Amino acid sequence: MSFDYGKNDGIIVSGGAGFIGSNLAHKLIKTTSYKVYVIDNLCLGKIKNLISSERIEFIKLDLSNKNKTENVINEIYKKSIIKEVWHMAANSDIPAGVLNTEVDFQNTFLSTYNLFSSLETKELEKIHFASSSAIYGDHGTTKIMESTAPLFPISNYGSFKLASEAILSSFVEKNNAKLYIYRFPNVVGSPATHGVIYDFINRLLLNPSKLKVFGNGKQKKQYLHVDDLISAMLLISLKSFQKRNVFNIGSLDSGIEVCEIAKLIVEKFFNGAEIEYGKEKQGWIGDIPRFQYSLEKLLNLGWKPKFPTSRIAVQKAIDSIGKELI
Amino acid sequence: MSFDYGKNDGIIVSGGAGFIGSNLAHKLIKTTSYKVYVIDNLCLGKIKNLISSERIEFIKLDLSNKNKTENVINEIYKKSIIKEVWHMAANSDIPAGVLNTEVDFQNTFLSTYNLFSSLETKELEKIHFASSSAIYGDHGTTKIMESTAPLFPISNYGSFKLASEAILSSFVEKNNAKLYIYRFPNVVGSPATHGVIYDFINRLLLNPSKLKVFGNGKQKKQYLHVDDLISAMLLISLKSFQKRNVFNIGSLDSGIEVCEIAKLIVEKFFNGAEIEYGKEKQGWIGDIPRFQYSLEKLLNLGWKPKFPTSRIAVQKAIDSIGKELI
Repeated sequence: MSFDYGKNDGIIVSGGAGFIGSNLAHKLIKTTSYKVYVIDNLCLGKIKNLISSERIEFIKLDLSNKNKTENVINEIYKKSIIKEVWHMAANSDIPAGVLNTEVDFQNTFLSTYNLFSSLETKELEKIHFASSSAIYGDHGTTKIMESTAPLFPISNYGSFKLASEAILSSFVEKNNAKLYIYRFPNVVGSPATHGVIYDFINRLLLNPSKLKVFGNGKQKKQYLHVDDLISAMLLISLKSFQKRNVFNIGSLDSGIEVCEIAKLIVEKFFNGAEIEYGKEKQGWIGDIPRFQYSLEKLLNLGWKPKFPTSRIAVQKAIDSIGKELI
Repeated sequence: MSFDYGKNDGIIVSGGAGFIGSNLAHKLIKTTSYKVYVIDNLCLGKIKNLISSERIEFIKLDLSNKNKTENVINEIYKKSIIKEVWHMAANSDIPAGVLNTEVDFQNTFLSTYNLFSSLETKELEKIHFASSSAIYGDHGTTKIMESTAPLFPISNYGSFKLASEAILSSFVEKNNAKLYIYRFPNVVGSPATHGVIYDFINRLLLNPSKLKVFGNGKQKKQYLHVDDLISAMLLISLKSFQKRNVFNIGSLDSGIEVCEIAKLIVEKFFNGAEIEYGKEKQGWIGDIPRFQYSLEKLLNLGWKPKFPTSRIAVQKAIDSIGKELI
């Protein structure tokens, strides 16, 4: 199949060389006949994360640069009729964004603003946005529904994700595009570029006898395997037809504690290593220690994850990330 | 009373030379002993809106300029211990922001981001933010509570106000300040710088025989008099003590239709003028034609407006704006 002749339908995946983005790009290659334009600043993403395919075109671009973003989008529209934009690009280092607000302003928010400012006059059918459970803030043990409010994010990451949701909502008012907002939990799998498993394994590689954990290890969160995240997003985009669609995506259980993840990694690869915990309930300022997600809306669409509990998803990810790193 | 010697407690009012900001600054002079630093870019605001007082210091500043904002904030903190920031500055021309996204990005959002980035390491007790009913989007005839969600604003103004709420929420996580979010309805009164009454009177002054109204005139909205808005905000800030406080502020009735406002103005000042309506339900893209606000939370604090219905507030404002303009 060749895409050298004439215009072809296309999809843009921003952040498409990153962990979730590269998995998504490959899935879109398999499940559609579209050409996939992958945009990434290669900050955490890597070209080697992408399979070699004439249906993938990679473009190195930092979306925080408005002029360059406009030029790239104009070039893409010369080559293809773009049907969908999957906007996955964002800062993914939440603690870094807490220390320096500019990180999330540039990479989580301006990236959204610049990308969609460039698309303002362009034809588009669907916009998919990787939002986050962090937009809700800390609701204690309340089960968080998509209609839970008020929304008081406590991390810069969460607030700039909510800010991005907001501008996408008004963006679609002016055109025919439908908006899909997916509120992600913690997502695990390969190729890992960040996250708790990646972090713990790397620290144990430096010092195989001791792992220092930030916080008291009792932070309990839902972890979902990237394959299940993508199956949920594709199902939602096929089965939900509102002008604006918003869905929580998470695992079916109530989560797994950080201390359990540390133990699983030590048992698997670093037997005998000592695990040392801090005293804080939060791993960092802006970290939400306990969190309960309602998946009712997603389950009503008939979604069934392959790895239904956080523990199973984490174990699967420890295996694959271990293979990558060790 | 002189403030020339040593440091004194102060308050910053951004947008303080504008319609609501100047009324607020004067009220703060009357009800506190603080020095009031008024920041305004004088885009719609005017210095003549401010009374002459040695307790008011006016600073011309465009908050969309990050460096200048930092310098001004540093200078203010050299002179006073700032207790509170009332952030009222924003684009107030909603239709202009619909036509050009950059207007609200710069004036409604970047103004917030730059102001509070400059305050990140500063002492501060309370942050007051002028948010808007526009953050909710269109919920039809549902009574909108502070806990109504999902939040899908349909105008750039609404989305950048929501984006501002979001970043203020994470801002206060890092310091001791309490956050007060006031979700404004349409506010009327003097000195008017914009809005439906100001607009209709000015258009009738140009052509006293005919008033063209955008939309079919059936858009029904709550209008609150600026005196009541300010009494509500001051009451909330004295009686609500959460880390983050959010309140709808509105009139006690279900609103008044645009056609009624047009008739009141014509009857009062331009007798016999013909009123011509458009066909659209909305006055502009992003306008919300019908809207019901729940004020339960505010009323539970014991708030009693002087001008309890939209019609009374509008009539009062027509009188005072008429005096200004005609």
